[in-house]
Amino acid sequence: MDYRKKFIVATDEKLRLADIDPDDTQDQGSDSEAADLTEQYRQKLADMQTLLYAENKRALLIVLQAMDAGGKDGTISHVMRAMNPQGVSVSRFEAPTPEERAHDFLWRIHSKVPRLSQVGVFNRSHYEDVLISRVHKAIDKATCKSRYAQIRDFEAELLDNGTHILKFFLHISKEEQLARFAQRLEDPHRNWKISEADYKERAFWDDYMDAYEEAMGATSTKHAPWFVIPSNHKWFRNLAISQIVAETMADFGMKYPKPSVDLAKIRREYHAAAVAEANGKKKKLKG
Amino acid sequence: MDYRKKFIVATDEKLRLADIDPDDTQDQGSDSEAADLTEQYRQKLADMQTLLYAENKRALLIVLQAMDAGGKDGTISHVMRAMNPQGVSVSRFEAPTPEERAHDFLWRIHSKVPRLSQVGVFNRSHYEDVLISRVHKAIDKATCKSRYAQIRDFEAELLDNGTHILKFFLHISKEEQLARFAQRLEDPHRNWKISEADYKERAFWDDYMDAYEEAMGATSTKHAPWFVIPSNHKWFRNLAISQIVAETMADFGMKYPKPSVDLAKIRREYHAAAVAEANGKKKKLKG
Repeated sequence: MDYRKKFIVATDEKLRLADIDPDDTQDQGSDSEAADLTEQYRQKLADMQTLLYAENKRALLIVLQAMDAGGKDGTISHVMRAMNPQGVSVSRFEAPTPEERAHDFLWRIHSKVPRLSQVGVFNRSHYEDVLISRVHKAIDKATCKSRYAQIRDFEAELLDNGTHILKFFLHISKEEQLARFAQRLEDPHRNWKISEADYKERAFWDDYMDAYEEAMGATSTKHAPWFVIPSNHKWFRNLAISQIVAETMADFGMKYPKPSVDLAKIRREYHAAAVAEANGKKKKLKG
Repeated sequence: MDYRKKFIVATDEKLRLADIDPDDTQDQGSDSEAADLTEQYRQKLADMQTLLYAENKRALLIVLQAMDAGGKDGTISHVMRAMNPQGVSVSRFEAPTPEERAHDFLWRIHSKVPRLSQVGVFNRSHYEDVLISRVHKAIDKATCKSRYAQIRDFEAELLDNGTHILKFFLHISKEEQLARFAQRLEDPHRNWKISEADYKERAFWDDYMDAYEEAMGATSTKHAPWFVIPSNHKWFRNLAISQIVAETMADFGMKYPKPSVDLAKIRREYHAAAVAEANGKKKKLKG
C-alpha cells in the first residue's frame, strides 16, 4: 500500500475532513502485525538520512500540524528518533514573542529552515498563522487568502533552493482528543501538561476543521504536499508517516559523493608503511 | 563500576594520556556481555531527558572532543540517539567562518548553548581554540593560558544559570586511528570522508596529546568535569558515556512539575459529562 497516494491532499481539493475516518488503518490489522513493517521503514529512514547527510545537496523539512493531543510529540519521539540526531533539528513554534510579532509571520519560520544535509522538523509552523489566527479572527478572510499565496511562494522558493517539504495533518476525532486528555489526568507524570485552555479550545473544533480544510486545499502543491494521516491509532500514524518520509527520500535518487582524493595513492603512501611495519613486527616476534 | 569516578580528570591534575590504556574495558568482558547494561543506561538516559524536558529548570551541555576518527559521530549516533530529538540539539563546530573569526572565540559557542529543558551536544567545541590553535601555533602559550581561564569563567557562568556541563575526550591510540582510516578506504559509502589532511595531521599526534593533557587539567572543574574515555572499543565507549550521562542526570534530583490546574475540577467539568454521555449512549444501545 502506497500511503502517499492514499493520503495526499490534491491541489485546490475541496477537502472534507468529516469524510476521512481517523480510525482508519487501511490494510493493517493491528499494532503487532504492523510492527515489523514500521521497523523496516524506520531503518530505511535512517539509511536515507545518512545519505542525505553525506550527499550534502538538499534538505528535508517535515511540518507537523494537529489539534492538541493529536500526536505531534509522539510522532517526533517514535518516527524521528530513528534518525541520527546530528542530522535532525526540531523546532517548536509557540505563541510568537514580541520580537517575532514585530516581523512578518514567515520571519521566525525562515530562520529555522534546515540547512543542506539536514532534516528539519516543525512542531507547529507557519500554518498556525492561517489556523489559530483565522479561528480566533485575528486576521480576516482576505488576509488569510493572501497568506496562503505567500506560503505557496515561500515554500516554492525553498524547494528551488534544495529544501524538500512534506506536511502532515495528524487527524484525530474529537472523542479521541478527550480520551487522550483523560489519560493525562490519570498519569502523574503527565498531569503538568494539563491546561484548562485546551479544554475550552474544544468549543472551536468545527472552526478548526474548516480552517484546516481550506488551508490544506490552498497550500498542498506537488512539491510541498499535505497528507491527512488517520491518527486515532498511534501505531498506524507512525507506520504511515515513516513510509511516506522514507519513500519520498528514496525517490530523491541520492548518491554518496565521490572521494575527493586518489584512494590508491592514499593506500600506497599512508597504509603500505603500516602494513610493512606490522609485518616487520610479526617477523621480529617470530624470529 | 562507577565510571564517573574512574575516568574523571581531577582539577589541575598533571594528566598523562600515555598512562591511560585506550583498549581498557574495565570490568566488561565483551560487546555482547555489555549490551544489556548499555541498553539499560540508554533507557535511563531517555527517561532522564523526558524529566529534564518536563521540569524545564536546567539544561545539559555535552562536549565531545577527540582526534579524527575518535568516535564523536559514532557516540552521537549510538548514545544520543536514545533521547527524544525534540529535546536534543547537536552543534558541529568546523573551522570558523569570517564572521565567527571577527568575534571572540566564545561568541559562536555561546549562541549554541542549549536552552532550559534541552540537551546540547557539541561535536568539537571551544576547546579547539586551545588545541588545534595551540598545536599549529596560531596562539602563544600565554594566550592559551588566558583562554583556559576564560573558558573556566564561561562554564562557571553557564552552570550558575542552570546549564550543567559534561566533557568527554574519546581516547584512541594512533594505531587505532590508522586502522579506522583503513576501514574508510574499504567502505565505498565512506570513501568520501577521506581527506589527505587527516593523514598529514598525524605528524602532530604527540603535540595534540600534550595540548589535551594541559587543557583538560586546566579546565576540569567540579561542575564541568572532563572524562577521558578509553575508546578503542566503541561498545565500551558507548557504555561508559551512557552511564556517566545517565547517572549525572539522575543526581540532579529532578521532579515532574506539579499540575497548574485543579485536577478534580477538570475531571468534574470536562470529563464527567463525557462519562455521562457515554453511559447514556450505552443505555440507549441496550434499550
